[in-house]
Amino acid sequence: MQNKFSKLLSSYIPILNWLPNYRKDNLSGDISAGLTVGIMLIPQGMAYAMLAGLEPIHGLYAVTVPLVLYAIFGTSRQLAVGPVAMVSLLTAAGIGALNPTGPEQYLLYAVTVAFMIGVLQFGMGLLKLGFVVNFLSHPVISGFTSAAAIIIGLSQVKHLLRINLPSSEHVQEIIVAIAQNIGDIHLLTFGIGVLGIIIIKYGKAIHKQFPAPLVAVILGILLVSFFNLTDYGVVIVGDVPSGLPTFSSPSFDSNTWSTLLPIALTISLVGFAESFAVAKTIQAKHKDYKLDPNQELIGLGMANFGAAFFKGYPVTGGFSRTAVNDQAGAKTGLASIISAALIVLTLLFLTGLFYNLPSAILAAVVLVAVSGLIDFKEPLLLWKKDKTDFAMLMATFLITLTLGIETGIISGMVLSLIVVIYRASKPHMAKLGRIPGTNIYRNTARFSNLELREDLLIARIDGPIYFANVEFIKAKLDDWIAEQKGSLKILILNMGSVTNLDSTGAHAFKDWIKEWRAQNIGICITATKGPVRDILNRWEIIQLIGEEQCYINTEEAISIIDNNFNSDLKDKIKPYSIQSF
Amino acid sequence: MQNKFSKLLSSYIPILNWLPNYRKDNLSGDISAGLTVGIMLIPQGMAYAMLAGLEPIHGLYAVTVPLVLYAIFGTSRQLAVGPVAMVSLLTAAGIGALNPTGPEQYLLYAVTVAFMIGVLQFGMGLLKLGFVVNFLSHPVISGFTSAAAIIIGLSQVKHLLRINLPSSEHVQEIIVAIAQNIGDIHLLTFGIGVLGIIIIKYGKAIHKQFPAPLVAVILGILLVSFFNLTDYGVVIVGDVPSGLPTFSSPSFDSNTWSTLLPIALTISLVGFAESFAVAKTIQAKHKDYKLDPNQELIGLGMANFGAAFFKGYPVTGGFSRTAVNDQAGAKTGLASIISAALIVLTLLFLTGLFYNLPSAILAAVVLVAVSGLIDFKEPLLLWKKDKTDFAMLMATFLITLTLGIETGIISGMVLSLIVVIYRASKPHMAKLGRIPGTNIYRNTARFSNLELREDLLIARIDGPIYFANVEFIKAKLDDWIAEQKGSLKILILNMGSVTNLDSTGAHAFKDWIKEWRAQNIGICITATKGPVRDILNRWEIIQLIGEEQCYINTEEAISIIDNNFNSDLKDKIKPYSIQSF
Repeated sequence: MQNKFSKLLSSYIPILNWLPNYRKDNLSGDISAGLTVGIMLIPQGMAYAMLAGLEPIHGLYAVTVPLVLYAIFGTSRQLAVGPVAMVSLLTAAGIGALNPTGPEQYLLYAVTVAFMIGVLQFGMGLLKLGFVVNFLSHPVISGFTSAAAIIIGLSQVKHLLRINLPSSEHVQEIIVAIAQNIGDIHLLTFGIGVLGIIIIKYGKAIHKQFPAPLVAVILGILLVSFFNLTDYGVVIVGDVPSGLPTFSSPSFDSNTWSTLLPIALTISLVGFAESFAVAKTIQAKHKDYKLDPNQELIGLGMANFGAAFFKGYPVTGGFSRTAVNDQAGAKTGLASIISAALIVLTLLFLTGLFYNLPSAILAAVVLVAVSGLIDFKEPLLLWKKDKTDFAMLMATFLITLTLGIETGIISGMVLSLIVVIYRASKPHMAKLGRIPGTNIYRNTARFSNLELREDLLIARIDGPIYFANVEFIKAKLDDWIAEQKGSLKILILNMGSVTNLDSTGAHAFKDWIKEWRAQNIGICITATKGPVRDILNRWEIIQLIGEEQCYINTEEAISIIDNNFNSDLKDKIKPYSIQSF
Repeated sequence: MQNKFSKLLSSYIPILNWLPNYRKDNLSGDISAGLTVGIMLIPQGMAYAMLAGLEPIHGLYAVTVPLVLYAIFGTSRQLAVGPVAMVSLLTAAGIGALNPTGPEQYLLYAVTVAFMIGVLQFGMGLLKLGFVVNFLSHPVISGFTSAAAIIIGLSQVKHLLRINLPSSEHVQEIIVAIAQNIGDIHLLTFGIGVLGIIIIKYGKAIHKQFPAPLVAVILGILLVSFFNLTDYGVVIVGDVPSGLPTFSSPSFDSNTWSTLLPIALTISLVGFAESFAVAKTIQAKHKDYKLDPNQELIGLGMANFGAAFFKGYPVTGGFSRTAVNDQAGAKTGLASIISAALIVLTLLFLTGLFYNLPSAILAAVVLVAVSGLIDFKEPLLLWKKDKTDFAMLMATFLITLTLGIETGIISGMVLSLIVVIYRASKPHMAKLGRIPGTNIYRNTARFSNLELREDLLIARIDGPIYFANVEFIKAKLDDWIAEQKGSLKILILNMGSVTNLDSTGAHAFKDWIKEWRAQNIGICITATKGPVRDILNRWEIIQLIGEEQCYINTEEAISIIDNNFNSDLKDKIKPYSIQSF
């Protein structure tokens, strides 16, 4: 009893699995990783907060309590939770729809979204709904991510060039606005931004763990301070309040909630999908612990509650920081706790240093981060391998670019489902013939020189028989029957790949059998799978066909039909054709 | 060339298939059926128009031009087109949302809906979208029809009892209102209504083609006329204008269109589904012509254009009148043309007779018609045979009853699709074992005493491998692999029931193979179907597995693995396992 309870407890509070038995030899890796990621988090947190439309400080607040909560409730030991580009952009898009009157209301909406995401993810985790993430298919994620990366990149152009641009998630509008304002580019700002991009992008070439973004930040601050660049028009971050975040409360206004709900749902799903994909990749390398999608939802939900109550904004597991965390040696969630501690120290003692940080450097941080997200390989691959999925990728990409992030992801999911249904509505079917001199039957559409008999039609249905495809299946069978009109005596249906019949399928199947019999065509079925045989029994279709007309395979059916099988074989095989198998 | 053109022409104008070669011996049947249906149409047309919220005369207008147009463009030769109960109710629901100011605007909206349905059905026919009707599954149609029948029946209670009721399609509201007004029942009206119901319901017992509704109508008129029942408060139809319908034009106001679009779409689909189902049932008895779903859409679309331009309202093929038409001997569309001619004569000379017709008699016509539509059998059957489909039926039924017709049908369709996706996301999988002393491999979950080997795992996946189920399949396979940890050498995947792989599935399958190999588990696949083998080739998965690891079936795989197969067999089978099959 005691044991069962502690097992249950540690399944909901995974930190109990590693902290009580913490091994000393993990400590150096955890400290090194924790500090490395913490240093990354300072510029990234501020940059992503700016992308979300918030003051930079909230990006730092978002990597204090949430990281500790994830370390307690999450199942991944390397996942680095915090603000990420996509979620920041989605947050901005969602809050924009509410037309906040000022920074205070903007923050209120941000913590409200975080709270709603917490409720949704925590709830989905409790209800074991982690499987819904499966409905985001590979091409949809790829097309969506590429488009979102472009939208995010374009959103940073205003900081990089210091020009006025509307905050829009419709690419066409931003491009038109850039073209119109191209004359107003502030070259000094642009120069600082490009310098930042070069340092961040190529700094890694020096050393894998070279803290390039931090170096760019420091260099930016030094340049502004020494040369008084603000006098020349360079925009800086300005006052960053010092001290720990105070308690914040989300709004419970029903109108606010209903407006924010779609974006909260989208972030809950997309954020979880991104996070879980990263966590899986890293877990596959370690294997000393198990990932649980439902507990991951709970962990991320708790992290978002932490963001909601301590002036942060929505967080999830990020790709690049998790990779760095792992490379730098993180073995347990202690690494994340150390990262959070570093941020706490920064908040207490170092915020004054960020006064002169140019916004263009933060834009550079975002631009380099998202430039790696644009996926060229997958569309090329799909163009060669799978035209349907290519079309789905491009559709999701173009819809996201032109109609916005939310419309894009929802269209992508709906498109995926339509393709599933469309494919299921036209199952593959084969008319079988015998390979001469053997007992092997193959698809006449793929093999030549197969033996066909005028009195027999052997048809195979490769898929479930259900409401969306009964018409298609019947029409195809009737076409084949019509080709053998007059001579056809027996229709053998190979059901080996029929995986299910719903009630529409069962009703239809009964009607077909009666209709064919009325045309003096005998029916037998072969190779029926267990679950389908159960259904055929339940609907009394086996009885309608006659149990003796249900064979184990086509060979047996034909040999018995031709009355020249040897009784030895019959004794051996028959029992299994009558039983379900 | 001439011939091709005339073939194309007669495929779009099916009347050309039968009118030029009209056989005289069909004439008597067509006349008899045409007159019988025409007589039915007089009370039904008026009653359904009243149900749609229109003046009764428009129900008669709707069975003039539309019938002739369907006879020209439709492919069924027995289908009796005209107003039907469900479509009438849907029309009323759709127009109600626009709050028409008076009968004239109501009519304008009615012809606008008819016009929109004409555009939608005609367009879907041209685009060959007839297949969409397949997405209405059997249980959804059954649940929806039963609920709609109850809603329609309740909508007639106000005429039958002569009490004030709100026009609502939410059953709970109507029932409350009836309870509140139960004291106001007008007993004389009720008596006439009950008399009408008895005549219509049991009149058929006298003779199959006894025109019971017409008799009830005549009796009602006579009773009111002789006893001056209007003085006692019986509500009558009143003035029915005589003469043919004049030309009417639909509204092209964009706001009207966007409000009416959902209902027009619903009627287009539901109306077509009902009509096509009836047409199929009747055609199956005749077989001297072919039904074409896309041309049916064109025919119904044309009929709705006819309704739109001649003061009618939406029409479709009706169940009961089609059955009567067939029983009375209809052989071609001429029967419908004769019905229309009878209505034209009525409009010209007989409308004055309907002045004293009690509304309660028309209510009786509708009530008897819809009482037959409530389906008790199917839910009972599904409860026994298929609990999922039972749940779907009940959900559609209850949602339709309580949240309205449109929400009901849309929820039903969405539910069907969710079930499809959910089922596809959890494909049936089997771990196979050998029936002792044979080479037959069966599902260990269904057979006992199967031989299992510690070094082999034989798994069968029964469904496509795609984005929605890759996680499920991987988890199950990994569970089975974990059970044989340490001893497992080779995983044999029986792919015989895998019907497709999308790009997500292909990516995942590659990853799995690499992951399992890293665990020192060899992979081979067996029984792959042609189309799947093409996909595996395209994604270079066959090459990854190794062509020599792809076997024709499990027996072959194991015998080759065990290196004790006879070379004779190898020579015979091998070529087909390398080729696609």
